[in-house]
Amino acid sequence: MSTTIEVPESSNVTKDKAVLGAPPRSGGWKKGVAIMDFILRLGAIAAALGAAATMGTSDQTLPFFTQFFQFEASYDSFTTFQFFVITMALVAGYLVLSLPFSIVTIIRPHAAGPRLFLIILDTVFLTLATASGASAAAIVYLAHNGNQDSNWLAICNQFGDFCAQTSGAVVSSFVTVVIFLLLIVMSALALRRSY
Amino acid sequence: MSTTIEVPESSNVTKDKAVLGAPPRSGGWKKGVAIMDFILRLGAIAAALGAAATMGTSDQTLPFFTQFFQFEASYDSFTTFQFFVITMALVAGYLVLSLPFSIVTIIRPHAAGPRLFLIILDTVFLTLATASGASAAAIVYLAHNGNQDSNWLAICNQFGDFCAQTSGAVVSSFVTVVIFLLLIVMSALALRRSY
Repeated sequence: MSTTIEVPESSNVTKDKAVLGAPPRSGGWKKGVAIMDFILRLGAIAAALGAAATMGTSDQTLPFFTQFFQFEASYDSFTTFQFFVITMALVAGYLVLSLPFSIVTIIRPHAAGPRLFLIILDTVFLTLATASGASAAAIVYLAHNGNQDSNWLAICNQFGDFCAQTSGAVVSSFVTVVIFLLLIVMSALALRRSY
Repeated sequence: MSTTIEVPESSNVTKDKAVLGAPPRSGGWKKGVAIMDFILRLGAIAAALGAAATMGTSDQTLPFFTQFFQFEASYDSFTTFQFFVITMALVAGYLVLSLPFSIVTIIRPHAAGPRLFLIILDTVFLTLATASGASAAAIVYLAHNGNQDSNWLAICNQFGDFCAQTSGAVVSSFVTVVIFLLLIVMSALALRRSY
């Protein structure tokens, strides 16, 4: 019985030590992950804002027109591209709001709460970014190649600038997706040895 | 010095106890999460296989034809739908292969390794499933509504069965995505207090 009483005492002592002193083993590694997390988030903000802005300013009017209407293509023409602009703006907004939590994990590398919060919301916004990027990519592919069976003609011969701009926005959104994947994997690895 | 030597001894004793006997505090909760994980994975396999099979068998030939060609629509007609079938089959295959790891987390609820493995691969395949579902949804939307500015006409008036079948496949893929989100959130919560 005396040994079992000693057990909680000694474990309390070690716990106090871990809280008061700096833990020498894994603390530096976790701080490095947290700083990397912060830098990657800045890159993701740039990529997401770039994607939303590139898509949102895509607008091309052809220099010729018929009696009845002028030929114009903008992101308004496609519901998918409107969804893309809104979603990427939302993702950029979330990333800006997540920066304080990333700073908290730098200051307190062993706190599991902020990391858990970030990993769950990152997963949700990864899904949003992937959905908008992939659906816009499907439309961009159609605009480039068309589809014979449904008689949808490629429009990139006429609207070359429009196609180039929307393709760039899609690439930028995929950069955001890759950064999100890295963030989640890093958070999961850092979360593992929190206790 | 004698106390510091006693500390690892006593902690070894508690560790053995935790492994041999049932841990009373958080073990039951973690086992519940692991069993839920297994059941959700079975549902995700059904949804992913259903999505791939529904899309893969979508094929409609119109009863009339001209002198030169017959009107036919199948998933082969659209590159996006081919991508969808391949991706959802891959996701279903991964989910089947992940079942043993899910069983390991049921048997050993406190092991962090299998959970970490599952959360990282789940995130990757969540991205794959979302990308294929969203891009197929963009094409299905075009098939239903068409697009005036690029002169792409809706084909669902002619190919009604084809459209219904592809729409069902898209819905089924989104069910898979939602289950993946639940799996990742649950794994992250269970990973938190592993140590």
